[in-house]
Amino acid sequence: MQIDTIMQQSAQAFDIYKQVKPAERAAFLETIAAEIEKQREILAETAGKETNLPAARLNGEITRTTNQLKLFAELIKEGSWVDAVIDTARPDNTPPRPDIRRMLLPVGPVVVFGASNFPFAFSTAGGDTASVLAAGATVVIKGHPAHPRTSLLVFTAMQKAIAAAGMPEHTVQHVADVALGKELVLHPLTTGVGFTGSLQGGKALMGYATERESPIPVFAEMSSINPVVFFPDALQTQAPQLAQTFAASITLGMGQFCTNPGLLIAIQSEALENFLHLLGTAIAASTPQKMLHSGIQQAYVKGRANMLAQEAVTLVSETAAPAGEEAWPALARSTGAEFLKNHALKEELFGPYSLVVTCKDKAELMAVLKSLKGQLTTTVVGTETDTAQWQDVIALQATLAGRIILNQPPTGVEVCAAMVHGGPFPATSDQRFTSVGTSAIKRWVRPVCFQNFPDHLLPDALKKDNPQGIWRTVDNQLTK
Amino acid sequence: MQIDTIMQQSAQAFDIYKQVKPAERAAFLETIAAEIEKQREILAETAGKETNLPAARLNGEITRTTNQLKLFAELIKEGSWVDAVIDTARPDNTPPRPDIRRMLLPVGPVVVFGASNFPFAFSTAGGDTASVLAAGATVVIKGHPAHPRTSLLVFTAMQKAIAAAGMPEHTVQHVADVALGKELVLHPLTTGVGFTGSLQGGKALMGYATERESPIPVFAEMSSINPVVFFPDALQTQAPQLAQTFAASITLGMGQFCTNPGLLIAIQSEALENFLHLLGTAIAASTPQKMLHSGIQQAYVKGRANMLAQEAVTLVSETAAPAGEEAWPALARSTGAEFLKNHALKEELFGPYSLVVTCKDKAELMAVLKSLKGQLTTTVVGTETDTAQWQDVIALQATLAGRIILNQPPTGVEVCAAMVHGGPFPATSDQRFTSVGTSAIKRWVRPVCFQNFPDHLLPDALKKDNPQGIWRTVDNQLTK
Repeated sequence: MQIDTIMQQSAQAFDIYKQVKPAERAAFLETIAAEIEKQREILAETAGKETNLPAARLNGEITRTTNQLKLFAELIKEGSWVDAVIDTARPDNTPPRPDIRRMLLPVGPVVVFGASNFPFAFSTAGGDTASVLAAGATVVIKGHPAHPRTSLLVFTAMQKAIAAAGMPEHTVQHVADVALGKELVLHPLTTGVGFTGSLQGGKALMGYATERESPIPVFAEMSSINPVVFFPDALQTQAPQLAQTFAASITLGMGQFCTNPGLLIAIQSEALENFLHLLGTAIAASTPQKMLHSGIQQAYVKGRANMLAQEAVTLVSETAAPAGEEAWPALARSTGAEFLKNHALKEELFGPYSLVVTCKDKAELMAVLKSLKGQLTTTVVGTETDTAQWQDVIALQATLAGRIILNQPPTGVEVCAAMVHGGPFPATSDQRFTSVGTSAIKRWVRPVCFQNFPDHLLPDALKKDNPQGIWRTVDNQLTK
Repeated sequence: MQIDTIMQQSAQAFDIYKQVKPAERAAFLETIAAEIEKQREILAETAGKETNLPAARLNGEITRTTNQLKLFAELIKEGSWVDAVIDTARPDNTPPRPDIRRMLLPVGPVVVFGASNFPFAFSTAGGDTASVLAAGATVVIKGHPAHPRTSLLVFTAMQKAIAAAGMPEHTVQHVADVALGKELVLHPLTTGVGFTGSLQGGKALMGYATERESPIPVFAEMSSINPVVFFPDALQTQAPQLAQTFAASITLGMGQFCTNPGLLIAIQSEALENFLHLLGTAIAASTPQKMLHSGIQQAYVKGRANMLAQEAVTLVSETAAPAGEEAWPALARSTGAEFLKNHALKEELFGPYSLVVTCKDKAELMAVLKSLKGQLTTTVVGTETDTAQWQDVIALQATLAGRIILNQPPTGVEVCAAMVHGGPFPATSDQRFTSVGTSAIKRWVRPVCFQNFPDHLLPDALKKDNPQGIWRTVDNQLTK
């Protein structure tokens, strides 16, 4: 089918879908969750074949996906997210102030690109799609080519939900052909783009979006090495436990998470050497597994070889060579001086690989942090003694990323209201937004202001008697 | 001075300024307002010479400028704007949920370009600058070349405020040289750009921002013709009053407002002809004045001649030829059919010019609206009978702009919490933001999430006992 037809259909569906009341839109999201739940077995099985991910992980991800849909349903049922702001008329002001009311309204058809590493939670009915539909916008999904059958099955479940909930047929559409991605972004009726994937892919989409006669926002989550700083007292007192925790985080899901800790930074010391020995041992003891698909595996093998071939980069440890097609987790090390010189060391290597950078002193550690690009997360590993002593380093870390974590690994992204899965470029294309958590809805809405409108012509969220009972800012006071 | 030095200074000042407590930051904004107030006379006099704007207007604009600064001071004193969201730990969840807290923090140094048409309210210490400083970010101002002495005087007042309030010297910096604008946007330490001006200028800045190794957001407010739809019953019953109101709006400040009503749309009728006769008469009776500067005046004269030379565009009325260098207000007309064919008619002509488009029926009127690009405002002129009858047209209008107005002219932009001075491209570069009103602060901040941090290491806004007493969302409940 031609992209133009698809986008026309999306725009027509949008004209209807945007008027659907929040309660019905919430019920629609819950119905999608229920339809996915009905297909759980076949979905997990199909995705298992397409992605090499184990059943437990896939089932967990399906639960996460349906929970996300339900979370957005709750958000729009509660309703305050529209950020209604009302300034009532002040006829006696000079000049007189008119009645001005504002709320968030959906932008229009949005194109969502499925991610390879989350066949459910960040693909067809994943977080991007859930946030678009919650906002009242329609969506055209570009399924990821690495799990086409999974994507189509999820889309079929969504179509059932559309029929069951009585939504316009083209509220959700699905495109499988990779070559059509560019055309979707360039189409004049597209008003926004959501993407999770490589830096190269994200930058291409950003380029198309700016090329358009009317540029549109692209939210692309792209590249992060998630630096972890280990402070001396923690290394001195907690090395065995830290080694277990971080070996598990580095090898979790074969390192195929956006928040995989790819860079470990510390000031050189005996305690550090002891920690690295323990960490290396734990990584060597981990079980090699197949990666998501052969393309990713080849890129990892090649990338790892390239990293290890860099000057002054040495292997600390790796798992024993696997018998079959599994990939090897590995830990490498270099120095702060070398890291500052060689930009190749700062690039993301997608997979179970982490680079340790040993710094000669605090100044070098700060320089290493300052040399980093934008990140999704950064982690502080420190005792109370450390956090008291290294406040300036921690403050610097907070400028690098959307999320700063104390004494926990960065993997594991909680889907909740406070989550920020975002960060300065190239972590994402726009650090003012997040793709995980309920705030993700803000990417697909715009404020619209109604001036001097009588009550009966206003949207419910802005009417005088607040029929939805939502929190609103009225004359600068938050009120229900 | 070199741009690199300026941006380094801005980044260094940012490291200190971002830590200034909200109450002190508010006091700083109030001190800027006070310093500007002290210079009111010389500022109005200097701007009068540089911009040809009358003293009353300039004095009103100075008041607007100081009020804006005070409004942002109130916003940050109250403090809830940081959108604090707290999800407390749930150790019994599977997996356990960590404590996650999020708030908005400033992005870094921002470059603000002064506007030609608001020498105070949208220039050196105008809305963009006030919102940047309120956010806790530092600012480098590119003064507008049409009012260099005014800009420098305002900057001097700001420097006094910096000294008096004890802020870092380079919290605010000022650059006069036009050629340096591009360099400022391209500099790696720049994290955001604010601009109000021409489509051409805004697009150039957007281009530079994407060219960068790390792209940054540009909020550019660029181009809008602010379509007004006149419905039949209103034309039938209120023509004389409407003619006065809209003639005044079209000629206000010689049409040099972003929200100038440049396009008047209606279905053809006798009542419309009567209204146009009255409107034309009122415009012809208006007083020609000099425009902001000779470049703008020449562009208007040339642009107006070009518009009137278009096929099937005829002059309805204009003022008598002025004796001196003043520009002529003018009203022209064409048909819906012609407007749909000729894209030149859809472009903004900056100045006291408005085009009437008469449509043969409702379908053509809808087609004319659909053919428009994004707008800052759109206005509905209709009685209760009209608004009941033409709901679909009004709904279509609401999709075009950031602000939809009923029975009031679009000129006059109230600075308040609910205001949206924004809209789809090319009205602005990103319809999700506004440059007027307190929400303008959202352009210069990003959410940052703190995971598993003890209370004493958290920013005040996120501490357990809420020392600032701000509104926060705690476990999905809004609370103080």
